[in-house]
Formats: sequence, C-alpha cells, structure tokens
Amino acid sequence: MPRYRLLIEYDGGPFQGWQAQANGPSVQASLQRAVRAFSGEDAQVTGAGRTDTGVHATGQVAHIDLGKFWKPDVIRDAVNAHLVPEPISIIAASEADPDFHARFSATGRRYLFRILDRRPPPALEKGRVWWIRKPLDAAAMHAAAQALVGRHDFTTFRDAHCQSKSPVKTLDAVSVSRTGEEVWLTFAARSFLHRQVRSMTGTLAEVGLGRWSAGDVRQALEAADRSRCGPVAPPEGLYLTGVTYAPQADA
Amino acid sequence: MPRYRLLIEYDGGPFQGWQAQANGPSVQASLQRAVRAFSGEDAQVTGAGRTDTGVHATGQVAHIDLGKFWKPDVIRDAVNAHLVPEPISIIAASEADPDFHARFSATGRRYLFRILDRRPPPALEKGRVWWIRKPLDAAAMHAAAQALVGRHDFTTFRDAHCQSKSPVKTLDAVSVSRTGEEVWLTFAARSFLHRQVRSMTGTLAEVGLGRWSAGDVRQALEAADRSRCGPVAPPEGLYLTGVTYAPQADA
Repeated sequence: MPRYRLLIEYDGGPFQGWQAQANGPSVQASLQRAVRAFSGEDAQVTGAGRTDTGVHATGQVAHIDLGKFWKPDVIRDAVNAHLVPEPISIIAASEADPDFHARFSATGRRYLFRILDRRPPPALEKGRVWWIRKPLDAAAMHAAAQALVGRHDFTTFRDAHCQSKSPVKTLDAVSVSRTGEEVWLTFAARSFLHRQVRSMTGTLAEVGLGRWSAGDVRQALEAADRSRCGPVAPPEGLYLTGVTYAPQADA
Repeated sequence: MPRYRLLIEYDGGPFQGWQAQANGPSVQASLQRAVRAFSGEDAQVTGAGRTDTGVHATGQVAHIDLGKFWKPDVIRDAVNAHLVPEPISIIAASEADPDFHARFSATGRRYLFRILDRRPPPALEKGRVWWIRKPLDAAAMHAAAQALVGRHDFTTFRDAHCQSKSPVKTLDAVSVSRTGEEVWLTFAARSFLHRQVRSMTGTLAEVGLGRWSAGDVRQALEAADRSRCGPVAPPEGLYLTGVTYAPQADA
C-alpha cells in the first residue's frame, strides 16, 4: 500500500483547527473529502501538527496511504482540484517510506507568529496578524525570550486542555525581530504543548509593551504555574511554517 | 473649512471599486459613511486613484473638507473605529493646504501587480495575487516591458470604457522581478488609463509564458489598436501602492 507525503498550506480562518471534529469544518476533514473525491478511497490524512482553530500553515506535513499507485504530482493536482474553493493547497506530494509517519517521525516543528504593530488596524492583513496598537520593543522581547530556550517544565505556557503526558519540552530556538510595521516571532522545537506558542507570544508581548521584565518571564517559567502566564495571543497571527524529519525518514 | 489628507489601505475584494456607485459597495461610500458617523458631516472623500472593482490599495490618498477642526490623529482613529468590520484602514491623516487636491495635485501614481507563479493554487494569498500555474520568464517580461516606457498612445492598453480625453500618457518606469514564488510588476506614471496596468500586465504575462516576443509587445503598442492587447490580468493581484505630490502641494 503506497504511502505519500504531502506538504500543505492553509488559511486557518474558516476551520476549527486541523483535526476532524464531530461538528464544524476542519482542514483534515476537507482533505479527506478531496482525497476520496479523486481516488474513491477513504484514506486518513495524518498531520504532523494538530493546529488549533484559526491557526494557519505554510508548511504542514501529512501522510496518506492509498490502495492504488498514483504519480505524486497527479495526487497533488487532483486533490487541489477537489479542494476548490477551500483555502487549502497541496504544495507538494512525494512517495514516502512505509515507516514514514508525518507526526511521529517529525524531529522538529517551526512556527511563526506575526504581530502588526501600528496604530491603524490591518485592512489587507486582517485575519493574518495579531494587531497591537502600541509600539513594541522587539529587542527587549528577543532578550526576554532567550530564558525560554532549553529543556523546561512549560506548565506556565500550557493550556489547561493539553493532553500531553509531560509538561517538559525542549525549546530549541526563539527569535523576535522587527520587519517594517510587523514584529515576527519564530519558534523551533521537536514538539510543542497545546497553545504553548500563543502563550509564550502573549507573555513576550507584555515585555514588548514594557509591562513585564525579562526577569518576570523567567520567574513565570520557573513557577510552573498556569496562572502566571501572560494573556494568550490570538490564533490569527500563528503559522506552522515547517516540519523537519531525520534524513532516513525523509522521502 | 479645514482640509485633511488621508492615506488609506484597503482590500478591494468586497468592493465595486473606489468610486461610490448607485448599487453595490464602494470604498468611497464606506469612508463617507464612517466620516459622517464620527463628525455628523456629509463630506465628500476625494481619492487620487479611482481603483476598479477588486483592486487593492496600500497607499491610496484622499482629501476631505470638514466644517470643524479636529486633530488629524483623532480623525484617523475615529474613522477607523467607524469602519469596523470593513477591510479599510486610515493609515495616516494630516492637515492639508486648502488648494491640495488628492486627484488633481498628484504628480505620480505607483502600482504593484503580484503574480503567484507556481503550480499549486494559493491558499493564504487567495484574492491577493493572480495565480499563473506555468513558469514565467521574469527577465524576458522586464526586457519587453521597457518598450512601454515613455510617452505613447496607449490605445492598445486602454479599456473601451475609458473616459480619459486622450490615450496619450507617459509611463515613467516599469520593472518586473521574481521574489520567491511571486513575480512582481511595478508601474509608475503621472496617471494611467482605465485598466492600463492590467492590460499591460496581461500582455507581459504572455511574454513570460513564451507566447509573445518583446517585438510583439512593441508592435502591439505601436498599432494603437485595442484588439492587439493580450488578455487583461484580473484585478486581485493589483495594488495602488503610492501617490506622489509636488513638494508645495505636500501637506
């Protein structure tokens, strides 16, 4: 049974997240419907990152098993044709090793959080950025963020509904920089807890606004206490930008 | 009666263009409604560029006359508050000279046309780019575009409904360059004919696809014959990015 790897872009706005829900639209359900429409097969589309309601992706990775062999480019084009008019696009499809697993083989995930930092509201980037009216000190945010790098108990930055067995994760890298009117935060880790990126982003925004110090962030982390988290940033600025795999797992 | 200058960004998608219409939403009507809601005055909002249905702006300029004096920042914030949830944003407001006229004082207009040049359709940039599936030769487009620079009879690139008295215009500059998966075309002129940028862009895309030569573009221009124009590019990739004024007309 051939396995295929998909690279996927989507606008998370209209979806209740990646994962198929009993009620409400999901990216996974839309993809499964498009796969069935083109192949006639009920294939599960397994994603690397179960993005939350409203979260976008430019580099989601998923795998599917199909009973029949297709040229990967045919899969990409046919699924895209059946996705119209939904804002989901298969960027690339390739054959994958039978033991490649989009979620469990992943060795790294990268997220980008875009903040539009200006007094006038977004018009063209509405739904694509978190709008903060007051000036942010991106350098202070970057400095404070470095306390989060490394292996820590991230209970403070973990949603109450997180299903992960352990709150201990290793954050490989975080950077905050200004690019024009936007402040971009990038995060890299093997995996993240539920709403961890939005919890860290909202807390770092408090630093950018001058309300929290770098020491406050460090102490909040060390407290391992959810009530010490800053406000959680909204989903519309968050993008899953990439998933990495060990070379042998790479298709 | 104080005159104010406004710098405006909008997503043209939901609008039947800039200009107030008997039927259908327009950017101008939405702005006039918001100005009335905040000031109680029926002020005309006069724009520099009468963008067409579906065309976006990051740098539209307009002026309004109000009976009462307001701090410009108050106008910007109050109009923005009354524009919610429409995708229009006043980026800046300033006091203007009484003889400043957004349209007639303008000495230059700049447009950007964004083409997404890749086989998979856009998901996140849907409605923001013209999607062309086949690879474009941006360098060939740039070279061919240079024949359009200068003072010419642009009848070939002018919509049948154009109300301009003369088809003669001076195109100051045009450039075509690739940036990742996108091909960007920029145009600068004192003023443009109706659908001139989309007509030139659609024609240059034919060059990028290898169907037209640079000589074909030059001959089409010289023919001054609308039937010699290539396909007209769709509005969703077009942005009015800036309007310039002579220093004395600058507020």
